[in-house]
Amino acid sequence: MPREIEDRVGAFVPGPRVELAGAAEGPLAGLDFAVKDLFDVAGAPTTYGNPDWARTHPPAAATAPIVQSLLQAGASLRGKTKTVELAYGLTGENVWHGTPTNPAAPDRFPGGSSCGSAAAVAAGLVDFALGSDTGGSVRIPASYCGVFGIRPSWGVISLAGACPLGPSFDTPGWFARDAAVLRRVGEVLLPSGGDAPLGPLLKVQEAWINAVPATAAALSGALGAAERVLGPAMGIHLVPETLDQLYENFRVVQAEEAWASLGSWIEATKPQFGPGVGERFAAAKAVDPAAAAAGRRLRDSVRQRVRALLAGGAVLVYPTSPIPAPRLDSAMDMQQAVRERTMGVTAIAGLAGLCEVSLPAAKAEGAPVGLSLVAAPGRDRALLALAERVAEALQLPG
Amino acid sequence: MPREIEDRVGAFVPGPRVELAGAAEGPLAGLDFAVKDLFDVAGAPTTYGNPDWARTHPPAAATAPIVQSLLQAGASLRGKTKTVELAYGLTGENVWHGTPTNPAAPDRFPGGSSCGSAAAVAAGLVDFALGSDTGGSVRIPASYCGVFGIRPSWGVISLAGACPLGPSFDTPGWFARDAAVLRRVGEVLLPSGGDAPLGPLLKVQEAWINAVPATAAALSGALGAAERVLGPAMGIHLVPETLDQLYENFRVVQAEEAWASLGSWIEATKPQFGPGVGERFAAAKAVDPAAAAAGRRLRDSVRQRVRALLAGGAVLVYPTSPIPAPRLDSAMDMQQAVRERTMGVTAIAGLAGLCEVSLPAAKAEGAPVGLSLVAAPGRDRALLALAERVAEALQLPG
Repeated sequence: MPREIEDRVGAFVPGPRVELAGAAEGPLAGLDFAVKDLFDVAGAPTTYGNPDWARTHPPAAATAPIVQSLLQAGASLRGKTKTVELAYGLTGENVWHGTPTNPAAPDRFPGGSSCGSAAAVAAGLVDFALGSDTGGSVRIPASYCGVFGIRPSWGVISLAGACPLGPSFDTPGWFARDAAVLRRVGEVLLPSGGDAPLGPLLKVQEAWINAVPATAAALSGALGAAERVLGPAMGIHLVPETLDQLYENFRVVQAEEAWASLGSWIEATKPQFGPGVGERFAAAKAVDPAAAAAGRRLRDSVRQRVRALLAGGAVLVYPTSPIPAPRLDSAMDMQQAVRERTMGVTAIAGLAGLCEVSLPAAKAEGAPVGLSLVAAPGRDRALLALAERVAEALQLPG
Repeated sequence: MPREIEDRVGAFVPGPRVELAGAAEGPLAGLDFAVKDLFDVAGAPTTYGNPDWARTHPPAAATAPIVQSLLQAGASLRGKTKTVELAYGLTGENVWHGTPTNPAAPDRFPGGSSCGSAAAVAAGLVDFALGSDTGGSVRIPASYCGVFGIRPSWGVISLAGACPLGPSFDTPGWFARDAAVLRRVGEVLLPSGGDAPLGPLLKVQEAWINAVPATAAALSGALGAAERVLGPAMGIHLVPETLDQLYENFRVVQAEEAWASLGSWIEATKPQFGPGVGERFAAAKAVDPAAAAAGRRLRDSVRQRVRALLAGGAVLVYPTSPIPAPRLDSAMDMQQAVRERTMGVTAIAGLAGLCEVSLPAAKAEGAPVGLSLVAAPGRDRALLALAERVAEALQLPG
């Protein structure tokens, strides 16, 4: 290994560091990466952020194909990173492993559930890191920690060897400090195609209105950069539903899937959970099947309409998170309010299965806020190329 | 011929009626139609609405292929209809042939330039009628006279044997009293394909704001009918330019083409023109080539962006004309103001080459106002099918 990594932000899971050298040659040769501790690496435990999960599961027998692909492309694995327990939370808190420090705003949460991966990249410990995203778990920590993050189109990259949360929403994702690395990782992981040019730019009015004024104001320059690349944005009111309705719709469908995926283990194990996580699973258990069925129908409607709108290459643009990261000492009520207001926005790509890149575009109240560019399913490669151009226009690391 | 037509609205050009029986069998068998007097019918003069044009051009040697197609499909030609001189006007006034009466609002203009065709259909003289549309010349008389009208995608139906005005904008078009006839004519004239389902519906905010309150209010029920068919409309601000800028952009590019098409004849003939027409050609002659070049660049930009937005099947919806037909006694200044405000809207499909159907959806101030459904180039067949469904939802003649 080329150098020792000093984990000064608490990004990695406790215990022996899981490291594997990448292939000597390849498109990612020379880059270091980390993986969220819900992806399997053969011989190592997969904690899923929870001590009872770690205790009740043997070390992984195989390495997740997505990790294998990165190693074969020349990148070296430098460790497994902390996750919110069972990936079911957005602040990035983990009372068992310790919440990673947000390197860009140490008095605030790093965002989650892929908290350790975002912190490791933001602190410069690795060049990129894998996370996963169900309801915002890559996009939100990317926004909070001031790094690039991508939630690729649902279904285009295998999640074999990764723990599930809501399978019809779950995607892998990754973080990087510069847009070129974000793109290069995509070129290894994404299927070919989907690189036809994108445009026009659609400013999603409800998401901009949903953002606090400081966020919207901070991102106006970044919006201008996107407009310099793609031409002036058209304002659109994207869905007839309110964002609160999108959140509630997303929540019930995801919750039903979360309980279907993890309820048996929870019932059998009666695990200890940190603040909020157990409550969310209790709510998941209690979801009314009729409400979930209605939610799936609404999801189908949103998906069909938004996909048709974006089919020709249009790109949505809005603040990744409406509010900067909550402070570490904020009340649970406030955290919950931020969560709901945030997930109304992240539900757009989640419900419709879109690809979304968050750019570390600005600071509001002294904390990072990301700008999201969002495109139709399968256009991930073009979106990564676009993000790189917008980053250049913003003079961000390219 | 099955019956004598009494032209009680002055729809046909003066002189002997040009009539041709259609084929005995065919998809349009039994239907009567009329053609705007800028399409050639072999052996007949093509007046182009102006006595000096008629005087300086021999009778047509051949029949326009679009007319041939209709005859071969079984429809019978019952006459040639009045047009604004050289098709360069929107009120439908023709001082040489007499302005046709608007059957739905006799104290108002019928709209133009395809005034006679709209009036003939609205009065029930024929089942459908051909017009042509450069800057609104089918859509506006359809809206003003309370009939269905289509401006098909630019370039999909040949204009051979038709007089030009602005060739990069000129399209044929047709009128009908019911949506099924409008569609059936399209099935004869349009190339195959383009029938994939459409959606979602995009409410073009600037065009609704541009409409006078009476028009917007009158069309709210029709918008609801479109939403029942396609689902709730998303509001969109379509272009960064104002509609005034779109109009001015359209005007200069069209004017340069109008002078290129007709200037040599005008200079050689020094024709007499009715009110406004000569002034418009004088302005066309004076267009700054640099302004026209800038206009073409802007058109390319609008075209590319709007087409990309609609590529997946999205449908724009807005009032065809922002203001009901001007009264016959209205001042020229007022007519010009209506013209400019109207052409900012008609320029959307004109600049981008889209297909647009106007439905006779409502009355405002006692006069008809149309609702337009607008789709990407080539989707004409699907648009006609959609218009029929919306007409059913509105309980219009289907």
